[in-house]
Amino acid sequence: MRVRKKNWAEGELSSNKIILKDPAHKGKWHELFGNPNPIQVEIGCGKGNFITEHARKFPEINFIAIEKEPVVIVNGARKVRELNEQGENLKNIFFITGNAADLRDIFEVDELSRIYLNFSDPWPNRKKWAKRRLTHKNFLNIYDSILNASGEIHLKTDNTVLFEFSLNEFSAENWGLKNISLDLHHSDFEGNIMTEYEMKFSSKGMPIYRLEAFKRKNTCC
Amino acid sequence: MRVRKKNWAEGELSSNKIILKDPAHKGKWHELFGNPNPIQVEIGCGKGNFITEHARKFPEINFIAIEKEPVVIVNGARKVRELNEQGENLKNIFFITGNAADLRDIFEVDELSRIYLNFSDPWPNRKKWAKRRLTHKNFLNIYDSILNASGEIHLKTDNTVLFEFSLNEFSAENWGLKNISLDLHHSDFEGNIMTEYEMKFSSKGMPIYRLEAFKRKNTCC
Repeated sequence: MRVRKKNWAEGELSSNKIILKDPAHKGKWHELFGNPNPIQVEIGCGKGNFITEHARKFPEINFIAIEKEPVVIVNGARKVRELNEQGENLKNIFFITGNAADLRDIFEVDELSRIYLNFSDPWPNRKKWAKRRLTHKNFLNIYDSILNASGEIHLKTDNTVLFEFSLNEFSAENWGLKNISLDLHHSDFEGNIMTEYEMKFSSKGMPIYRLEAFKRKNTCC
Repeated sequence: MRVRKKNWAEGELSSNKIILKDPAHKGKWHELFGNPNPIQVEIGCGKGNFITEHARKFPEINFIAIEKEPVVIVNGARKVRELNEQGENLKNIFFITGNAADLRDIFEVDELSRIYLNFSDPWPNRKKWAKRRLTHKNFLNIYDSILNASGEIHLKTDNTVLFEFSLNEFSAENWGLKNISLDLHHSDFEGNIMTEYEMKFSSKGMPIYRLEAFKRKNTCC
């Protein structure tokens, strides 16, 4: 998501306590949350509706939203602040700036239980751009190391090329797949929480793709 | 495919030498073909364009088309006879009548190298019909037993619900997936041989789905 620098956001970026400027919490996220609950991360949180609604709905889970554009996460963090001012008292959510390529610097091996990839940039449909996609095998290897043994990746997209690419990458890298949907909003899937982009896109009647990928258990003796 | 009984087909059904009325060749298909070449089977061959073109293109592979409606395969078998009258000399193809549920009675364990499922009946999108779909886990278990260790299933369909169902069934039953395409005719896939149904359907601009499933190697010690 390309954004212009917004001066109004600068103050909030430095003063909002749920926006972490220094992500030096590798291996210590449970301490920061103050509980041993599972940690789930959304990579590319946009305006934050998805992760914030998850934090409200699942107080027993810790959420972290990562976004590469610093000014973008101000909206999400502001949403949480406003909810808390209304009495929600959300303590299970943080926002940090960072890139998916640096996740190993942010999280310890096995530290996460789930990663959400929502409407990631599909990049042009040419081989030279494939490495940029967040489901390229290089990224899957990163996720593999920071997710625990029962860790999962939940992906949603409206982009056919990205979904096809992702199905093939997950399969080639030996991830298990389940709950694959080629038209999420007309499926039996319950409890879907929409991103802002998803609301806008699906209102035009276009299908949303979804899948859940999981690390295969090593059953060897 | 529901068809009316056609009397003109009766004579051909009994006289055409590549239509096998008695499929008692279990474990002896290589003898029948007279060579040790791989055997590939299409379940539900329709009018036979797909399997006949494969037989022409790959003389080093043996092909068997199975169709539950006896009169349907007459068209396919006639196509082969006409090609042979024109000098093709196709000896690597047979047609038999039968149901997918009976495949274990027709083929020995490990006897096949590939199964093609082309535009199979999707059945209504309700759970009670799921068992009829040719990618239901009960069928996958049958295919698993008659395919050899490197055996594959190649599936094509225009039906979104069937394709989604198939992705989930293959994944749940621990088959590997590769070369998944959500729009085959606009993909990089080369050498696609179309069925009659596919020609008709894709000419309307609708996408064709495709996947290849393979048995996972048991890597345990």
